[in-house]
Amino acid sequence: MAQKPSIPKGTRDFSAAQVARRNYIFDNIKEVFKLYGFSPLETPTMENLSTLMGKYGEEGDKLLFKVLNSGDYSAKLTDEELKNPSKICEKGLRYDLTVPFARYVVQHRSEISFPFKRYQIAPVWRADRPQRGRYREFVQCDVDVVGTKSLLCEVELCQIVEKVFEKLGINVVLKINNRKILASIAEYIGYADKLVDIAVAIDKMDKIGEEGVFAELLARGIDGAAIEKLKPILTLEGTNAEKLDKIEAIVGQCEGIDEMRTVFSYLAAMGVRLDIEMDLSLARGLSYYTGAIFEVKAKDFAMGSICGGGRYDDLTGIFGLANTSGVGISFGADRIYDIMSEGELFPERVDVSTKVLFANFGGEDELAALGVLSRLRAAGVPAEIYPTPDKMKKQFDYATSKKIPHLAFIGESERTTDTVTYKNLDSGEQKTVSKAEFLAFFATI
Amino acid sequence: MAQKPSIPKGTRDFSAAQVARRNYIFDNIKEVFKLYGFSPLETPTMENLSTLMGKYGEEGDKLLFKVLNSGDYSAKLTDEELKNPSKICEKGLRYDLTVPFARYVVQHRSEISFPFKRYQIAPVWRADRPQRGRYREFVQCDVDVVGTKSLLCEVELCQIVEKVFEKLGINVVLKINNRKILASIAEYIGYADKLVDIAVAIDKMDKIGEEGVFAELLARGIDGAAIEKLKPILTLEGTNAEKLDKIEAIVGQCEGIDEMRTVFSYLAAMGVRLDIEMDLSLARGLSYYTGAIFEVKAKDFAMGSICGGGRYDDLTGIFGLANTSGVGISFGADRIYDIMSEGELFPERVDVSTKVLFANFGGEDELAALGVLSRLRAAGVPAEIYPTPDKMKKQFDYATSKKIPHLAFIGESERTTDTVTYKNLDSGEQKTVSKAEFLAFFATI
Repeated sequence: MAQKPSIPKGTRDFSAAQVARRNYIFDNIKEVFKLYGFSPLETPTMENLSTLMGKYGEEGDKLLFKVLNSGDYSAKLTDEELKNPSKICEKGLRYDLTVPFARYVVQHRSEISFPFKRYQIAPVWRADRPQRGRYREFVQCDVDVVGTKSLLCEVELCQIVEKVFEKLGINVVLKINNRKILASIAEYIGYADKLVDIAVAIDKMDKIGEEGVFAELLARGIDGAAIEKLKPILTLEGTNAEKLDKIEAIVGQCEGIDEMRTVFSYLAAMGVRLDIEMDLSLARGLSYYTGAIFEVKAKDFAMGSICGGGRYDDLTGIFGLANTSGVGISFGADRIYDIMSEGELFPERVDVSTKVLFANFGGEDELAALGVLSRLRAAGVPAEIYPTPDKMKKQFDYATSKKIPHLAFIGESERTTDTVTYKNLDSGEQKTVSKAEFLAFFATI
Repeated sequence: MAQKPSIPKGTRDFSAAQVARRNYIFDNIKEVFKLYGFSPLETPTMENLSTLMGKYGEEGDKLLFKVLNSGDYSAKLTDEELKNPSKICEKGLRYDLTVPFARYVVQHRSEISFPFKRYQIAPVWRADRPQRGRYREFVQCDVDVVGTKSLLCEVELCQIVEKVFEKLGINVVLKINNRKILASIAEYIGYADKLVDIAVAIDKMDKIGEEGVFAELLARGIDGAAIEKLKPILTLEGTNAEKLDKIEAIVGQCEGIDEMRTVFSYLAAMGVRLDIEMDLSLARGLSYYTGAIFEVKAKDFAMGSICGGGRYDDLTGIFGLANTSGVGISFGADRIYDIMSEGELFPERVDVSTKVLFANFGGEDELAALGVLSRLRAAGVPAEIYPTPDKMKKQFDYATSKKIPHLAFIGESERTTDTVTYKNLDSGEQKTVSKAEFLAFFATI
């Protein structure tokens, strides 16, 4: 019996229309990355497990897709060893683009000229439980610069965010904070050693609310008095400059505050119009951030963050290259796709490629159509002919289902008068014109 | 101790220059596919192993990369079962793009309007022993049409081959044959039941020579008298039309010969200039071909075939959809890349993106440079500024290593006179111009 075909859960097929819309997003993002001087990098789908393990926490290790060793994987192994994935798998699918990037930078450091500005738009894999908006194979669009501590890089990332969402037509707010300010706050409330715990808890504000965050802080060993000191800080109000003044008045002078003031002054000098909001409750869970942190949300859609990132001072250290500060952000293409679909933000006909379908009447008519078709293609116009002289209805339906905007006919009367009849399938308008006029029309639309 | 970073054998990192050159190939191929009315399709990296197993022969099954089940893969399994890959792996990395395509067509047959013309350019994975020119992760560029037996499709594939290699500047010959002719030959020599054995043996002509092929035929149970009858057929000479006449004189009337004559008459009528050679020794090893078969070789390079394909009448049958004939070809991007590198066929500067680097002198000069930079980018010109006011030598070296063609300076004298100085790093030529002239120059190059 034939198998009933299916694909693994959490993965997707993309039809032509979906591919076109996804590429519309990728192409726009890529164009902005290039505009800012970033170059593409591609790393393998599979990395050594030794590169990936231990970089995403215990939970992350479990979510890595591991690839079985090829050949006789079980030879020379005890029954107990066969139950240990690291004995039977040496490779895994990449979990994000950041760790492979750090691995690349260290491995190729002698060929790279720093500061190294790279982007990578590629799928990653996580064995998460699939749910609405969460897939096991999904695309990340990462842009990073390593090898410089210049705050101009933070400024450029804000500009990239502005430009990308302007192009895509999504109204966003960029929230910004700084891990060094969070460190000063942790010190101020008496828990300088608990910065990561505080960041992880605060980061859940959106999901579990203020009370939830305070409960989690308690559970992580921050006492009630400290939490009382923290509360007013997390809800400081005012302009970005006012917030920085207020937090400075509380925690005192701090490098993070100076950095933010520099970034804001650059942004003002360069006329950046993006809505940027200093948010002292923004923390981001990842432990490797050490400076500015970012998160972008769409204003008109109930959706988590669609872009995020920050500065890291020692990401490459684990692979043996210390003191290589970098900063980067990642755009979540799948969430952006969902927002653009819901908001109908894709341009019309983004998915149309073929501009005209020639009906096929067979015999000499077919040969005449093939001649004109060749000339159209030589002029660079995507065009096709229905491959067999089937019933007109079937040929029509084919054009409609592929959203081909025009249908062209060369029957006996056209053939003998050297003309072509073509019909606009949207308006229904039909014309008979000379071959030259026909070619000229399609070369310009 | 820090790990020494590396990647799995047979996989590769691609630097910006390599990505640009690879994209040059992919973009040209994609453009031709679209010109002929093919639409993109994307399928998941992982397929169910049940979809992949048994489709590539016993050897192929061994070369599949299998993905370990996530969660507790060893629970409920006996020690013996742990040694059986199909008990601990349900998914695998795709081995080619053809089987996933057949799976897609069957799974989505109710949404697809036939004839279905799709292309897919994507990596595939094989656990082959890596060697020069053979990788474990490599890209295939497939184009297929299913749901029609029209020979116009074969003709269009020849035109696609012509156009792709014309664009890439590679001088090629397309060899063509037909499995139905091979079937008639098998019948003529008295081994109608051994068509696949004969095809597999003949297919090795390039690798093991005539004598090798004859030895293999003997080993596969074809007797000496039959081989003697076969010998003159494999070396028939003349034009394509003459070869078809000669083979018809030997094996009699045959559908495959008629098909080839039709294809050649279309190609002549459409003025196809591609060098196409009827080659009766072309067989192609894959068992699913049933009609025309193709193979493309570069004339000026010692390299195996760089493109190949054919017609298959029942590829989707195994997934439950019978009578869906299709035809397709696949371009081998990695071999094409090697040929173009060796022949220096890539256009100059294909890998250059950033057009100008602003030197960074810090302070007010930096702000002035940032202002001009913003205006350049607003005009769509990829440009960047060195992020810190480092030594000039360092900034120069950065531009050189990234192959950025121009360096721009705004120092005190430029700032106070509203001018920009820029230097062409190839010619050494240097100019000081007004900001407006500067912007106008870069907007047009």
